[in-house]
Amino acid sequence: MLVNGRNSDTLPVLDRGLLYGDGLFETIACIDGQMPLWERHMARLSRGCHRLGIRMPSQELLASEAASLVTARRQVLKILVTRGEGGHGYFPGDGETTRILYTRSWPQRGDDAIRAHLCRTRLAKGSPLAGIKSLNRLEQVLAARETQAAGCTEAILCDADGFLVEGRMSNLFWVSRSRLFTPTLEYCGVAGVMRDYVLEVAGKAGIDFETVTCTPETLAQAESVFLTNALGLRLVSECNGNKYDSDAVPFEITAAINGLLKQA
Amino acid sequence: MLVNGRNSDTLPVLDRGLLYGDGLFETIACIDGQMPLWERHMARLSRGCHRLGIRMPSQELLASEAASLVTARRQVLKILVTRGEGGHGYFPGDGETTRILYTRSWPQRGDDAIRAHLCRTRLAKGSPLAGIKSLNRLEQVLAARETQAAGCTEAILCDADGFLVEGRMSNLFWVSRSRLFTPTLEYCGVAGVMRDYVLEVAGKAGIDFETVTCTPETLAQAESVFLTNALGLRLVSECNGNKYDSDAVPFEITAAINGLLKQA
Repeated sequence: MLVNGRNSDTLPVLDRGLLYGDGLFETIACIDGQMPLWERHMARLSRGCHRLGIRMPSQELLASEAASLVTARRQVLKILVTRGEGGHGYFPGDGETTRILYTRSWPQRGDDAIRAHLCRTRLAKGSPLAGIKSLNRLEQVLAARETQAAGCTEAILCDADGFLVEGRMSNLFWVSRSRLFTPTLEYCGVAGVMRDYVLEVAGKAGIDFETVTCTPETLAQAESVFLTNALGLRLVSECNGNKYDSDAVPFEITAAINGLLKQA
Repeated sequence: MLVNGRNSDTLPVLDRGLLYGDGLFETIACIDGQMPLWERHMARLSRGCHRLGIRMPSQELLASEAASLVTARRQVLKILVTRGEGGHGYFPGDGETTRILYTRSWPQRGDDAIRAHLCRTRLAKGSPLAGIKSLNRLEQVLAARETQAAGCTEAILCDADGFLVEGRMSNLFWVSRSRLFTPTLEYCGVAGVMRDYVLEVAGKAGIDFETVTCTPETLAQAESVFLTNALGLRLVSECNGNKYDSDAVPFEITAAINGLLKQA
């Protein structure tokens, strides 16, 4: 683990990342020494830093520190960036940005489609943080507790008005009459790098897609539902009493993701 | 500074307080060795722990650690409680609660009424975190940046639908035709311990008060506007082009707060 370039596994308590969640993070797939979505992760981190007014660390520095940490064929890299120490109350000071990089092992999981829980925990709506991946993730923690209690590993979340937003740690897609749909992330949610990639692949492959505002009832008509994050695509077999067919997912999308992540 | 009872000013990077803002905090006024709102702070911390499913540290332990840190006549004590380490993704593990206590000096500020900025930064609405004082405070940081840019020290915030909620680091009250008003905190905001105290004092003194859903235009009709937090009451002289008269604040309220905090 590297904290500002030094081997360390601790951080000052007064770092604003802890005091206020005043920072951002990225979870990055590392495969055979490559990080296939690196540019997109850096673009999102940069957008987040701009939104929060945090000085973005140099991408070259992040890339070289990342390279020094990756050792296994398949690993997950986490990058945290915080505003560092300083300021008073919530007012930012002029402290140095803190950067933290560490790796963890690739999660053990099968390729089977999963049953997803439809969460009662709602995402607050109209957040100035919509779209970015900040360290304010308590809603996801509450959703995770609810998901665990429901005996599931993933869940689908709605906003405070009951409209679909995303998965607990993923973005949501569904296929209906050969069209691809995903919720708008204008008012809350995290714009995933894999979501961007899927939409780009769909555009190039001539697959019709639409970004929509829909309630969970819409999913009753879907032929297929899937969730994506930086580590891949996960098919949903069942959610809220509806069952789904994996064959309706456009093969161009699964092929592109499998190619990107070098999966069978 | 005490981290789990030991002198330390660092925390493990993998503490969920940093990774997800998975915790709570209290900012407590310490005066002549007393913490006059201690019971209310403990009650709110306990409600927050219950909401998040975090094991609340023993209040006796917190009280004795707090007492060991307080040295000056007038100080501010901060208590942070996080879910500690463990879990994967957003899923909580069964780690031990982390408790952090430290003091800082009482802020230097005059008693003059202040000009408050009406923030364009909105608070997301419908949060499962409404009312509690969690470590997810990025909206307040963004509001603080805007307040600073506007040349003010405090600000008044609305929710995503444009209804009044609270101050940037305080709760909002106003007086109109001898009635006291404060916004509802059902959908967002932090239920301040001093807000509770003010409403209790108002009730005992027979002052009519109401918890309301109002837009900022309502403040144009107010005779007086004030903000409260654990460190006291601050009069607002001007906000959004409206000017206010401090004499309209019920004397029972200012007298009670001044008595509580032993201020002149």
